[in-house]
Amino acid sequence: MAAAEARPGGRRRCRRLEGEAARAVLGAADTLLFDCDGVLWRGEAALGGAAAALGRLAAAGKRLCYVTNNSSRTRQAYGEKLRRLGFPPATPRHVFGSAYCAARFLRQALPPGAAAYVLGGPALAAELREAGVPHLEPGPAALPGPAPADWARAPLDPAVRAVLVGFDEHFSYAKLCQALRYLLRGPDCLLVATNRDHRLPLEGGAAIPGTGCLVKAVETAAEREAFIVGKPNRYMFDCVASEFDIDPARTIMVGDRLDTDILMGNTCGLTTLLTLTGVTTLEELEGLWKSQKTSHFSWVTWK
Amino acid sequence: MAAAEARPGGRRRCRRLEGEAARAVLGAADTLLFDCDGVLWRGEAALGGAAAALGRLAAAGKRLCYVTNNSSRTRQAYGEKLRRLGFPPATPRHVFGSAYCAARFLRQALPPGAAAYVLGGPALAAELREAGVPHLEPGPAALPGPAPADWARAPLDPAVRAVLVGFDEHFSYAKLCQALRYLLRGPDCLLVATNRDHRLPLEGGAAIPGTGCLVKAVETAAEREAFIVGKPNRYMFDCVASEFDIDPARTIMVGDRLDTDILMGNTCGLTTLLTLTGVTTLEELEGLWKSQKTSHFSWVTWK
Repeated sequence: MAAAEARPGGRRRCRRLEGEAARAVLGAADTLLFDCDGVLWRGEAALGGAAAALGRLAAAGKRLCYVTNNSSRTRQAYGEKLRRLGFPPATPRHVFGSAYCAARFLRQALPPGAAAYVLGGPALAAELREAGVPHLEPGPAALPGPAPADWARAPLDPAVRAVLVGFDEHFSYAKLCQALRYLLRGPDCLLVATNRDHRLPLEGGAAIPGTGCLVKAVETAAEREAFIVGKPNRYMFDCVASEFDIDPARTIMVGDRLDTDILMGNTCGLTTLLTLTGVTTLEELEGLWKSQKTSHFSWVTWK
Repeated sequence: MAAAEARPGGRRRCRRLEGEAARAVLGAADTLLFDCDGVLWRGEAALGGAAAALGRLAAAGKRLCYVTNNSSRTRQAYGEKLRRLGFPPATPRHVFGSAYCAARFLRQALPPGAAAYVLGGPALAAELREAGVPHLEPGPAALPGPAPADWARAPLDPAVRAVLVGFDEHFSYAKLCQALRYLLRGPDCLLVATNRDHRLPLEGGAAIPGTGCLVKAVETAAEREAFIVGKPNRYMFDCVASEFDIDPARTIMVGDRLDTDILMGNTCGLTTLLTLTGVTTLEELEGLWKSQKTSHFSWVTWK
């Protein structure tokens, strides 16, 4: 599963991991953080060998956690999916999805009683409920009349102090309009988003737009930058570290994307392990290394 | 109505226009191009003095044209609105809205028989029809099933060779998804947008999101930059110049925004006239000048 590894701390190195080297790297770790889509599975199919590999790591006493930018499932639902696809049993506590992390962030950041306006799906709402963050229920929304003047007069909830943007298949101009109106309340209304992934790859080269597209629309309207909960922001790692006793030097971040998984791992001083099973390909990795485009992965060397 | 004027050709100058100076500047022009929203009217109310001023200019034999980024009306509808609000009679031929200009661009850019996928309203569709550009009818769209795999299997029209983004109150994730799928056909599928205005100011400090927000969402998904038909791109002026015999040295662009109207006028070698009746305020103008932020208006001097 693992193809390349890098270690932080000035030693820029990237190598193919196999046999003895793989055993040494894994042996030195006590915690592994796994991205999910493109690393453990694609859609409803586990990637070949992944479940068995994680089974061996669990049997060897490693702590396995799951960190995913996908905001369309709860911690609970991820636990069930892991079990369904044959991965070692995982409690919801070991799962750090961006829906959960966003709810956690808002619980800490909002004053008591303040509510969130949510562009997102049922999982995001469920995690907010679980965290005790008041919120408007997501779902389809219609414009409240035929003319712009009507749109700007639709009722606003006085308790709203944050706009939270996650993956929302019901995203619409009507919702964008309400989001802007809340954000025009000024800096007292936070703008928070689960992630910036701008495209979700599907089987056969197909793709659908990711949350990042919706975030851009809201940011453009509001003339503000969102606080991003997901990778590559370190907030997601901080969530793991606040729930478990984590030693970064003995932790490995396993992911399929340089610009989210590996960048976050590098930022947080973890060993990083790029699987070549998802977004970033070997050709891309070599091309980027040759072109010295190192802004996102200055830790990469290829030998 | 007019407050500040600048002339191209190296002489960076900006001054308040009144009395004799105003008469001299207007006397030297034979054509005036007017932005509409925030310059001639706000919503359904003409701005004080605007209709009378344009009446005098028309009586003096000036050619009056209208150039607006607003894509939600046809040329015909603008002609009717001008008449309704007491402006001098204008034929549709004198109106250059971004819906008309986008249709004109696509008529020139698309091969025969090629169609456009439209994020926009009825006016955009009407101008495409008038220009003879085949297109999918805009309006609300639903996702074609519950799961991402369904969304990526919805039927696509094989004739589509362009995605056109204008103001679309029915903008939705479903439409963003289809737009991305057409754009994934590669560079043979053009990405064209009417304008980048990201916010539409309404009465009383309210605002709604502008087309620019939708453009950003599509560009982010497609990893491509749209060709922008509207101001500050010079394409809109080129449309005017191809329909009338225009001498830039005797043409004045009248607008309320530095970043669209005045920038386009400056790019095209026109005299520019900033009304302080809309987006750009006098404070802003002075502040920008003092801070030497001249990238968008290197022509501005203030005395």
